[in-house]
Amino acid sequence: MNKRLRPPDKGGGAKRRGISAVQPIRWRGDRLELLDQRLLPDKKIYVSCRTAEQVAKAIRDMVVRGAPAIGCAAAFGVVLGKGSPKAYEALRQSRPTAVNLFWALDRMKRAKDLEAEAKAIYEEDLAANRAIGELGAPLIAERARVMTHCNAGALATAGYGTALGVVRSSKGKKISVIACETRPYLQGARLTAWECLQEGIPCTLITDSMAGHLMSKGEVDVVVVGADRIAANGDVANKIGTYALAVLAKRHGVPFYVAAPLSTFDPKISDGSHIPIEERPADEVTGYRKMRWAPKGVQVRNPAFDVTPAELITGIICEKGVVLAPNRERLARLF
Amino acid sequence: MNKRLRPPDKGGGAKRRGISAVQPIRWRGDRLELLDQRLLPDKKIYVSCRTAEQVAKAIRDMVVRGAPAIGCAAAFGVVLGKGSPKAYEALRQSRPTAVNLFWALDRMKRAKDLEAEAKAIYEEDLAANRAIGELGAPLIAERARVMTHCNAGALATAGYGTALGVVRSSKGKKISVIACETRPYLQGARLTAWECLQEGIPCTLITDSMAGHLMSKGEVDVVVVGADRIAANGDVANKIGTYALAVLAKRHGVPFYVAAPLSTFDPKISDGSHIPIEERPADEVTGYRKMRWAPKGVQVRNPAFDVTPAELITGIICEKGVVLAPNRERLARLF
Repeated sequence: MNKRLRPPDKGGGAKRRGISAVQPIRWRGDRLELLDQRLLPDKKIYVSCRTAEQVAKAIRDMVVRGAPAIGCAAAFGVVLGKGSPKAYEALRQSRPTAVNLFWALDRMKRAKDLEAEAKAIYEEDLAANRAIGELGAPLIAERARVMTHCNAGALATAGYGTALGVVRSSKGKKISVIACETRPYLQGARLTAWECLQEGIPCTLITDSMAGHLMSKGEVDVVVVGADRIAANGDVANKIGTYALAVLAKRHGVPFYVAAPLSTFDPKISDGSHIPIEERPADEVTGYRKMRWAPKGVQVRNPAFDVTPAELITGIICEKGVVLAPNRERLARLF
Repeated sequence: MNKRLRPPDKGGGAKRRGISAVQPIRWRGDRLELLDQRLLPDKKIYVSCRTAEQVAKAIRDMVVRGAPAIGCAAAFGVVLGKGSPKAYEALRQSRPTAVNLFWALDRMKRAKDLEAEAKAIYEEDLAANRAIGELGAPLIAERARVMTHCNAGALATAGYGTALGVVRSSKGKKISVIACETRPYLQGARLTAWECLQEGIPCTLITDSMAGHLMSKGEVDVVVVGADRIAANGDVANKIGTYALAVLAKRHGVPFYVAAPLSTFDPKISDGSHIPIEERPADEVTGYRKMRWAPKGVQVRNPAFDVTPAELITGIICEKGVVLAPNRERLARLF
């Protein structure tokens, strides 16, 4: 099922449209190739999925992760499953928090041409990321030190990225990135650091626990993160640890931005308290991969996301614009 | 230089004085045996030091860590070095932040009988921990869920512990501990979880990034941490990540206590901004032990401590009592 990495499509469409060479999702007509993000940055291997169930498993096992990327993968999963109820059900059960998954499945259900719709979802996500980058870039000052959490980059989307899309679009300003490692799954250390290095953007890695210290020393100019689901009132579910960053940023007067496409908004959910928060397996916390460092017998909590209340968010950057001081009224105008 | 663990001294002095069976430091007259905390909880091996330089290296390499334990070890290091200027210098250079090291060296310099003084420092630390436990216990409610960071337990002291001393003394109240894993060195996951399990205290392990989420869900009743240096105004240097916990605790109205003996107070330092913060090697952040997960070429910051301002601290628990709302005036009365 695995195959070695082929050289990314270069010089052609990807480059012309200004997207990065990092391609987490490749549609091949009869199969979906997903860059196995569990193995990055050590190995670049694509997992090939030929059924909806294989795509659902790849989402559940975090071969592909990041809210917009999960939505795109699920759409192609429906194509592979020929739109059967079983396909929808398997995909719907894969992960609970990122709303892009359910948004994509709902959109596929209404479509006549499944493959055309999945491709549209993918292309629209790319375009949304580009727009987010362009709209967000003016918020980033020359030589800004941009802190981010988890990975909201090309790997988390169809390509280009949301939070890292803003970073990419600001590259000419000699900015640098501070990547929080993002325990337990280390998406910051493994994916964000790797994406930045691929792009030639200076990147400093820290543990999640160091963010407050750096802010207190005046070493962080702005925080930009992605999102997994945005409630109608502007509360944002994102990778666990985001909330602490927002609280610290508020204390230190550091602007805190969320970058996400409209597919991440869930206007049906009134506020963040209703967003389902996935609890993941204990072994992600007691160690990493095959290494275990915690003693046997210890109990574990492993919520994969937390909720940042709208009051802590300076602005939400989406493809339609920047919503400053987000609240119910301002977000309603987007739809 | 290493030797297998011998069964701890049981039933004798240790048990009568109510200290835990965890013995990080054993003085053998001609050598100092240090439980190698880098290998816990997998292996329990004592490193035997016969010179001051070996003790200094053991402190630098974190065979022994925790502010009071470092102070005790350094005192015995002076005995092994026969009080030579070279011995003092090696020990003084071992680690910069925990003031107990310098406090112990200064005390040894004034002593006539080096061995008697080192033993006194050790015994007084044990007694201080017991007092801290007894004075702190009334602050812990029945069935309290006590969050702690890093390891301020028996392993970090002569025995019994400061923050975990308060926990040990509250054991009858059916409390439970929430241990933050404490990246990068994982003292919470490896040491605090292990100490709790040894004592039969229920312990839940989380990543540092989860603390805010649990507080927002009302799942944390009190935070108790140790300290590496307390400035005259009550600012506290402690393991990196402590500051974020204090900020989050303040937001959620969760009491935040610091437990530390008087040897951790540094009245000569006016406020926390003057406390030297150790930066440790990059490879602690880019991976763990021999495993590396961050891409090559990434820059790293690795401050080992941060400063929590006094205004965020509900109280400091020392062997002379609990100083609520600590400030310059209230702390001055301790001396």
